[in-house]
Amino acid sequence: MTGADVIDRCQALARMSESADCITRTFCCPAMHDMHRTLRAWMEPAGMRAETDSAGNLRGVYPGQQVDGPWLLIGSHVDTVPDAGAYDGVLGVVLGIAVVQALHGRRLPFGIEVVAFSEEEGVRFGVPFIGSRGLVGTLDEALLARTDAKGISVAQALRDFGVGEAAARREYLGYLEMHIEQGPVLESLDLPLGVVTAIVGQTRAEVRFRGAANHAGTTPMHLRRDAMAAAARWIALVERAARATPGAVATVGSVHTSPGAGNVIAGEVRATLDVRHADDGVREALVARLRSAAEMIAVRRGLQVEWNARLSQAAVACDAILTELLARAAEACGQRAHRLASGAGHDAMIVAAIAPVAMLFLRSPGGISHHPDEAVNAGDVEAALAAGAAFLGELERRYV
Amino acid sequence: MTGADVIDRCQALARMSESADCITRTFCCPAMHDMHRTLRAWMEPAGMRAETDSAGNLRGVYPGQQVDGPWLLIGSHVDTVPDAGAYDGVLGVVLGIAVVQALHGRRLPFGIEVVAFSEEEGVRFGVPFIGSRGLVGTLDEALLARTDAKGISVAQALRDFGVGEAAARREYLGYLEMHIEQGPVLESLDLPLGVVTAIVGQTRAEVRFRGAANHAGTTPMHLRRDAMAAAARWIALVERAARATPGAVATVGSVHTSPGAGNVIAGEVRATLDVRHADDGVREALVARLRSAAEMIAVRRGLQVEWNARLSQAAVACDAILTELLARAAEACGQRAHRLASGAGHDAMIVAAIAPVAMLFLRSPGGISHHPDEAVNAGDVEAALAAGAAFLGELERRYV
Repeated sequence: MTGADVIDRCQALARMSESADCITRTFCCPAMHDMHRTLRAWMEPAGMRAETDSAGNLRGVYPGQQVDGPWLLIGSHVDTVPDAGAYDGVLGVVLGIAVVQALHGRRLPFGIEVVAFSEEEGVRFGVPFIGSRGLVGTLDEALLARTDAKGISVAQALRDFGVGEAAARREYLGYLEMHIEQGPVLESLDLPLGVVTAIVGQTRAEVRFRGAANHAGTTPMHLRRDAMAAAARWIALVERAARATPGAVATVGSVHTSPGAGNVIAGEVRATLDVRHADDGVREALVARLRSAAEMIAVRRGLQVEWNARLSQAAVACDAILTELLARAAEACGQRAHRLASGAGHDAMIVAAIAPVAMLFLRSPGGISHHPDEAVNAGDVEAALAAGAAFLGELERRYV
Repeated sequence: MTGADVIDRCQALARMSESADCITRTFCCPAMHDMHRTLRAWMEPAGMRAETDSAGNLRGVYPGQQVDGPWLLIGSHVDTVPDAGAYDGVLGVVLGIAVVQALHGRRLPFGIEVVAFSEEEGVRFGVPFIGSRGLVGTLDEALLARTDAKGISVAQALRDFGVGEAAARREYLGYLEMHIEQGPVLESLDLPLGVVTAIVGQTRAEVRFRGAANHAGTTPMHLRRDAMAAAARWIALVERAARATPGAVATVGSVHTSPGAGNVIAGEVRATLDVRHADDGVREALVARLRSAAEMIAVRRGLQVEWNARLSQAAVACDAILTELLARAAEACGQRAHRLASGAGHDAMIVAAIAPVAMLFLRSPGGISHHPDEAVNAGDVEAALAAGAAFLGELERRYV
């Protein structure tokens, strides 16, 4: 298969949608049946036996030389956000099938399982990673009982979809996820591929500055307790501090002023904060610094500040050895294997609980994702195909 | 009358409301009939003939020594914002009546007209100063045809209320408005009274910063075009520039982030700007500086900025001689006559088109106004009463 063939397959799958106007494919929706039927029709000629597991994941099994040998898991998710692009998740599954197909039935010292995870985006049930949680065994009763907007539970959705048995527990030597970058880094470096070192940890908080709402005309500057002026100082500092911390990103994406009138000094401002870094210690130190800066700004101005923690998620490191092999594989195909952290979450975060993981990023034109304009270059897909095949070769040499 | 008597009268008028729960009294509402009836009942024993003019203003006429002599206008407005306090506007009318009453029928070289303006707040028709525009003769056809939320025009509202004839045109030697400060300056200086030098001019604008919405995790700091980070720099600068400009106030009271999600870099921010100063040149220079700063910040960051002018209103100077007489009057009563600019608009702005104007501010406890907690100290009202009487004495000495 060529890169263009892989793109054609992704485009074919993009037509399987809940909506006539756009690409939307949530967990266990009817379009997922078409998706599975098509993926099976591609898996089987490549030598895989396809089965749906109890979490709605489609798993294509390509046995190795020994019945009790180890397995390599390759895959990604096939659900989407509403009004999505054609490549987020899906590309990794199609590439996995193509890599196996390129073996032309040749057996390796390990089996390969290509997985199409049923759910990663968290759209239907407000909780992400249902598919990979099912695979690793953390799809618990509480999550199965969770309901969607129509009151249908995860368990009921799975029954209605008609899922299979819990899959046989396999011993995985590793997990490879090939995914679009969904960001601008590789494009800015003019590189087709990147090797992911870690999936960043993340802190989210809501920060409230409380001052005093007052008349914008009659309150002199020195008698104000302006929550927006205080918040502005802090937001500028958030950016400065993140810029000064290599590898960190920090974002104030939403600001709400109250009462929010042009001629009234803001009495309260609510701002969101999102901080990410591949090193949890660096992230926590940065967050602590931003928090004390907010408090200092508030105290100096006679304001109160309230810090509401919303999320603190640890970073997940990719496996050093597997990542090194993946980088060598890419370099063997003539690519520079740029190391970068993933700023977004991926199924690999969950699978890391049961197996060493490695991730290959493909350049995202314009850095665009979660949008109909999401794209991928045929040449970059070709490079990823070659790197995937070379990665199997690297593993083969280690497992002989 | 004592200060406490004046406060009692304001409290009695506060019960005349459109709402059972709070003080709300808009232009020509039924409660305005009770208001007029009560004011008449106070004007007449003080020696005034009360009449409603064609704009719904109640005017109490206290003749001077000569039939064709000049007139002093004293007053303020008797409408309110929704859920108002008891003193904004009303206090100036009650004080005007009390000052005339204190003459005990003695004739002065000029007549006095106490006016209760029908409308100043702009609540019912979205346009302020209907009362004072009526008095000065700028209540034009376009304004009379303007309709409220129920489709009733200003002209119809006046007919329904049952207004009088257009009042006789009088030659005014001046206008005195006594009003609560509605700000914290006098309280911060521990002073009961202030003398207004000017009503500030005002610029309002909406400023849009346009960058690029992007994933908060996958977009490194150096590849962002974060509209909120840019806006924050600018808002901090707005505050700094206003603090560095004596007498200026500048406010960003409302900020709107778009798309406004915690994990998405803001692609667009809309911010309001309100700049006021007693000197139009200073205000315009400050606005120009803020505008070029917004443009510089945007250019440096690869953003666009859009500047939408919303209002540019010139300052109105109080009359220098009348203001000096008012300051002397206050000082003769043992008060320090602190000079300050009014950051809010007042009927005096409109009356200034036909007469020299002077304004006396009374300290606002807590700086609170347009709120049920709006208050005034009895001792401060007493001081204002004395200053008002002394002001008549100052004028008398000049007009003999």
